[in-house]
Amino acid sequence: MTLKINDRLIMTPGPTMVDPRVSQVASNKILGQFDPEFTKIMNENMELIRKSFQTKNQWAFPIDGSSRAGIEAVVSSLIKPGDKVLVPRFGRFGDLAIELATRAGGKVTVMDAEWGQVFDQADIIAKMHEVKPKAILVVHGETSTGRLQPVDQLGHAAKEAGVFTVVDCVASYMGVSIPVDEWELDAVIGGAQKSLSAPAGITPLTFNDRFAEEILKRKRVEEGVANDGSARSDDYVFSNYLDLTQLMDYWSPARLNHHTESTIMNYALHEALSIAVNEEGIQNRFANQFKHQHILKEALRKLGLTIFGDEEHEMPNMVAVEIPTGVDGDKFRATLLDEYGVEISSSFGPMQGKIWRIGLMGYVAQKYYVLRFLSIFTHVLKEYGVAVDETAMNEYLTEAYK
Amino acid sequence: MTLKINDRLIMTPGPTMVDPRVSQVASNKILGQFDPEFTKIMNENMELIRKSFQTKNQWAFPIDGSSRAGIEAVVSSLIKPGDKVLVPRFGRFGDLAIELATRAGGKVTVMDAEWGQVFDQADIIAKMHEVKPKAILVVHGETSTGRLQPVDQLGHAAKEAGVFTVVDCVASYMGVSIPVDEWELDAVIGGAQKSLSAPAGITPLTFNDRFAEEILKRKRVEEGVANDGSARSDDYVFSNYLDLTQLMDYWSPARLNHHTESTIMNYALHEALSIAVNEEGIQNRFANQFKHQHILKEALRKLGLTIFGDEEHEMPNMVAVEIPTGVDGDKFRATLLDEYGVEISSSFGPMQGKIWRIGLMGYVAQKYYVLRFLSIFTHVLKEYGVAVDETAMNEYLTEAYK
Repeated sequence: MTLKINDRLIMTPGPTMVDPRVSQVASNKILGQFDPEFTKIMNENMELIRKSFQTKNQWAFPIDGSSRAGIEAVVSSLIKPGDKVLVPRFGRFGDLAIELATRAGGKVTVMDAEWGQVFDQADIIAKMHEVKPKAILVVHGETSTGRLQPVDQLGHAAKEAGVFTVVDCVASYMGVSIPVDEWELDAVIGGAQKSLSAPAGITPLTFNDRFAEEILKRKRVEEGVANDGSARSDDYVFSNYLDLTQLMDYWSPARLNHHTESTIMNYALHEALSIAVNEEGIQNRFANQFKHQHILKEALRKLGLTIFGDEEHEMPNMVAVEIPTGVDGDKFRATLLDEYGVEISSSFGPMQGKIWRIGLMGYVAQKYYVLRFLSIFTHVLKEYGVAVDETAMNEYLTEAYK
Repeated sequence: MTLKINDRLIMTPGPTMVDPRVSQVASNKILGQFDPEFTKIMNENMELIRKSFQTKNQWAFPIDGSSRAGIEAVVSSLIKPGDKVLVPRFGRFGDLAIELATRAGGKVTVMDAEWGQVFDQADIIAKMHEVKPKAILVVHGETSTGRLQPVDQLGHAAKEAGVFTVVDCVASYMGVSIPVDEWELDAVIGGAQKSLSAPAGITPLTFNDRFAEEILKRKRVEEGVANDGSARSDDYVFSNYLDLTQLMDYWSPARLNHHTESTIMNYALHEALSIAVNEEGIQNRFANQFKHQHILKEALRKLGLTIFGDEEHEMPNMVAVEIPTGVDGDKFRATLLDEYGVEISSSFGPMQGKIWRIGLMGYVAQKYYVLRFLSIFTHVLKEYGVAVDETAMNEYLTEAYK
């Protein structure tokens, strides 16, 4: 059976197109996990992750798994049964945060905002003082609605109150500046398959010493690896694979045996981070995505479509657009994919059938792709009988991309 | 920073060399996780995994993570706090089984065999009748000692007693026949980075309907994905990422949103399984590895080295050899790797410093590699002042590879 992989234009908010240079490095030969050539790559990945999060944290490494594995590693290493957790929910990934905290045994207090809106940070801080949780678990870039929750004030207030701030930056990572130290965030999870333009399956994260000190109380070096004197807490993390205290020993000079690190995912991560951090520069990457996101959004408006949600707090690497009246959103997406090789996303829960989500993440944020996308998207809108103003859009695009 | 990846001859019992065709497919463009072209690949991977385990089980899919993620998924989905678990330990991966069962809340009874030996299945069965556990968790190929535990009688006896048999076949997978249905094993975990010759980071597994029925009692469709009528057990699995009941919905026509499946790891798995199952045929692969393992073992004997352990129960895809007296095993390995690009393994716990472990797994089981390895290995033994009989070895090899 030979793999059939057509050329797709993936304009979703993730998993999205991978920079071809990143794909290429995944075809390299493997190295043993304790080979000095591989541990050097691991060390470089730690340093690149630090730079990507603008942090001096010692602890910055990837988890071998999808983004939710990264979030689960952080949540389940911090939250013990009975711990109180505060989750401000304004979309589907707030639901995931609730689920992960609950499974770790946390007692979750949920704050709700209308989907398409975000919270005033002062409201979250006030609720924190009322609930007195061990942690606030908040989504930064909520792709289900395309909103970006400001979190720059949370870390400091939480720290003063002895609360930990955990931020799911899976979809905002490499799409917007996340100065982890400046914002005093305790643990932050990024994503590979969004604005980093790497394949899914590896998840960069970072946490500070305060967070490390807290989770190390639960450290339990595993049976058969523990030496005399090794920490063997009875308050251990339920997961072994996602136990950050064990991963700290693996991702440090101790190189204590744990799982077998995925070689090719580390190659891909290394290349993707090198491009974003060293070659492009993260501020340039943010600016570029924002530029094309703005142009796509305005072009869709000229066409006659309605942009969804609170525009002041939108993610700068995607566009959420209302599905035109009378159009079956999923059928439309199937036509777009099956007949034209173009993929966009639907959404979840209350947003299902109401909006399409179009990503402008990382590598895909190029004039070339935006124009290709719009010409096909417009063509299919017309096929579906939607009245569109192509002339207005094209006039705008000619100006915008001059 | 450009990746530096030298040409290594990786003769460890995993992670081991990847077939270049497998490496190449990882460089393909990605596909969206719900793209019909990708779900077709996912479906083919399920079918290939079934064939690899010689099973008609409906449930056969990979976990996005290393082998221990696969074992943890099975153990933590089955074992609830307070459940009794029986673990026969005869090496380091027995320790891992104990650790995983304990973290899931299991009450573990351990049987011990001397490292280098295996258990008589009748003893395990007798102990099972005494302990009456919910599950027996046993390692098939124990790479730390190079032993292969017979498990062909366990499944039937356990089933009759209402006990589940979970077998860690990470290191034996694709190295030896594992007829899951014939042996009546309830859940079996394979490994990618051993005799399958794929990169680490994805883990094939299978389980039968009896196992599925048991874990489905704990099913809890997650917050935000659950619809009215979705299962929401309060007896849920602690992990969300590794919850097999959720992965069953993802790896079935329901395609219920869960994690973002790793595209390139699925490409690699597809190619590696296609080669092993369809092109070579698994029985041929087993026979080929066994042939080269036998030759390597005899060649080492001719050289004057001592083979470790109970030879009747050795793994047919690796050789455990005693470190010659007076040689610092780790220093020797460092010379081999740093100066000659050849990697072999040390071992764990009581075996540390006593044996080297040399893999003949999958792609590396070729005359070309065995001879390359032996010539360099012999050269370094002499550098380290070990008296070896090269003539005897070379005469043997000339005959063996005629």
